[in-house]
Amino acid sequence: MDKYKRYERLAAIVKIFSENPNTLINLEYFMNFFGIAKSTASEDIDILKNVIEKFNFGKLITLPGAGGGVKYIPISDIKSYLPFVEEIKEKLKDPSRIIPGGFLYTADLIYSPNIVTKIGEILVLPFLDKEIDAIVTVETKGIPIALMCARTLNVPLVIIRKDSRVTEGSFVSINYISGSQRHIRSMSLARRSLQKGSKVLLIDDFMKAGGTIKGMMELMEEFDAEVVGAGVMISTEKPENKLVDNYISVFVLKNMEEDKNIIDIEISDWILKG
Amino acid sequence: MDKYKRYERLAAIVKIFSENPNTLINLEYFMNFFGIAKSTASEDIDILKNVIEKFNFGKLITLPGAGGGVKYIPISDIKSYLPFVEEIKEKLKDPSRIIPGGFLYTADLIYSPNIVTKIGEILVLPFLDKEIDAIVTVETKGIPIALMCARTLNVPLVIIRKDSRVTEGSFVSINYISGSQRHIRSMSLARRSLQKGSKVLLIDDFMKAGGTIKGMMELMEEFDAEVVGAGVMISTEKPENKLVDNYISVFVLKNMEEDKNIIDIEISDWILKG
Repeated sequence: MDKYKRYERLAAIVKIFSENPNTLINLEYFMNFFGIAKSTASEDIDILKNVIEKFNFGKLITLPGAGGGVKYIPISDIKSYLPFVEEIKEKLKDPSRIIPGGFLYTADLIYSPNIVTKIGEILVLPFLDKEIDAIVTVETKGIPIALMCARTLNVPLVIIRKDSRVTEGSFVSINYISGSQRHIRSMSLARRSLQKGSKVLLIDDFMKAGGTIKGMMELMEEFDAEVVGAGVMISTEKPENKLVDNYISVFVLKNMEEDKNIIDIEISDWILKG
Repeated sequence: MDKYKRYERLAAIVKIFSENPNTLINLEYFMNFFGIAKSTASEDIDILKNVIEKFNFGKLITLPGAGGGVKYIPISDIKSYLPFVEEIKEKLKDPSRIIPGGFLYTADLIYSPNIVTKIGEILVLPFLDKEIDAIVTVETKGIPIALMCARTLNVPLVIIRKDSRVTEGSFVSINYISGSQRHIRSMSLARRSLQKGSKVLLIDDFMKAGGTIKGMMELMEEFDAEVVGAGVMISTEKPENKLVDNYISVFVLKNMEEDKNIIDIEISDWILKG
């Protein structure tokens, strides 16, 4: 007789997959964990596949063969995120978010674990069929978003520093021009923090002219890294001509009028169109 | 007849709790979600309670009454983390982590989603019975750890900046003395990022003399915040007299000899003693 009942095993497997998204787990693991036969483990996975799809919790993918196994993709279609992005859009429209100087206060959202988890899931969704070795961001506000992207894809996070007080050995620095403010800034990345030739996804919280993302792209060249894409939580509508063109955003800030207390922000088209 | 089979509901509930740790969910939520009677929802929770404890996945806590419900604490006893901390300790002992100047390279661990998730869980474990309103950290390397602490407790993260390029409205700055290097540094926090009178847990990646944590404590006074405790991933054994005394760490760095390629690091006593 099996040590655990089927519903116990299924509940446990859901928990294991939830904690290890995008990680290939072979059937032997479950056979040993529960002390069950291969056929039973296989049946469990089949049942769970249906459950996960029924509740729109993402999907289980089976890779056949000797090096095969099952992995859990914790995100489903973009449509299931619509109520969430609508809710965040309304929060972003609150005029009290306008900070003198034309800034938008978003820290409360980005630093809220539940919200940033979902933002991270949305930003990696378009790249699920791409091979990605690391998520690269630049300090500071992009870090929580980037970590949740990294968690969803089960790849390491890489953090570019804005100063050169890097205490991680030799590093590469570049100067870049902040596109909207035309200031010269610098960013640095420790040599050992990114393997040569990695495929990377760039993540940040906010993009105006795209100077920071462009700087990140230049820095990536120093590491022979291939930039698969770039994603930000909010991009501005203007300037129309950005310094980069291959990027996605969750929200588009169309207009912000400090004196009139107006924030005009929309959900990006690719999300609305599904 | 119920729309979903019991094993389907149980698997779905596990997923919902996993995504919403430390969040009170009432039975009505599950009754509506699955279209089931209160007694059935109640039975489901009871079954799940046993499953979660059987597999050492943490625990489900039922709060009775009108404002009651069930919440999931995703961490169990500290003993279950021992194999993990042993594994990380071995990784930390690798002499190639020694960086000239007496620094220890840890970014690969802190920026790895699976590892930092568990470090975050361990650091909040001693504070589970305390009321905590926010996790406070200082940029940069503490952020991933602090976010995972915040996620486990389902409270907001607050990030103190090391420069004053704060674009989040009015802010409070303090100067503090980096304890080991005796340099004057400054840290800043936007007024609106932390409510007056909050109860906070301070989190950072590394602590030598404790100057940074002490600076954070001083800054918290400016917000009338109550510091419930402090936790770091690694503390050093020396100096013995730290600038703060109320802190916990996961690892203690006893000795590091650059010329001899020796890193002597141990798991903290409170973890070993369980």
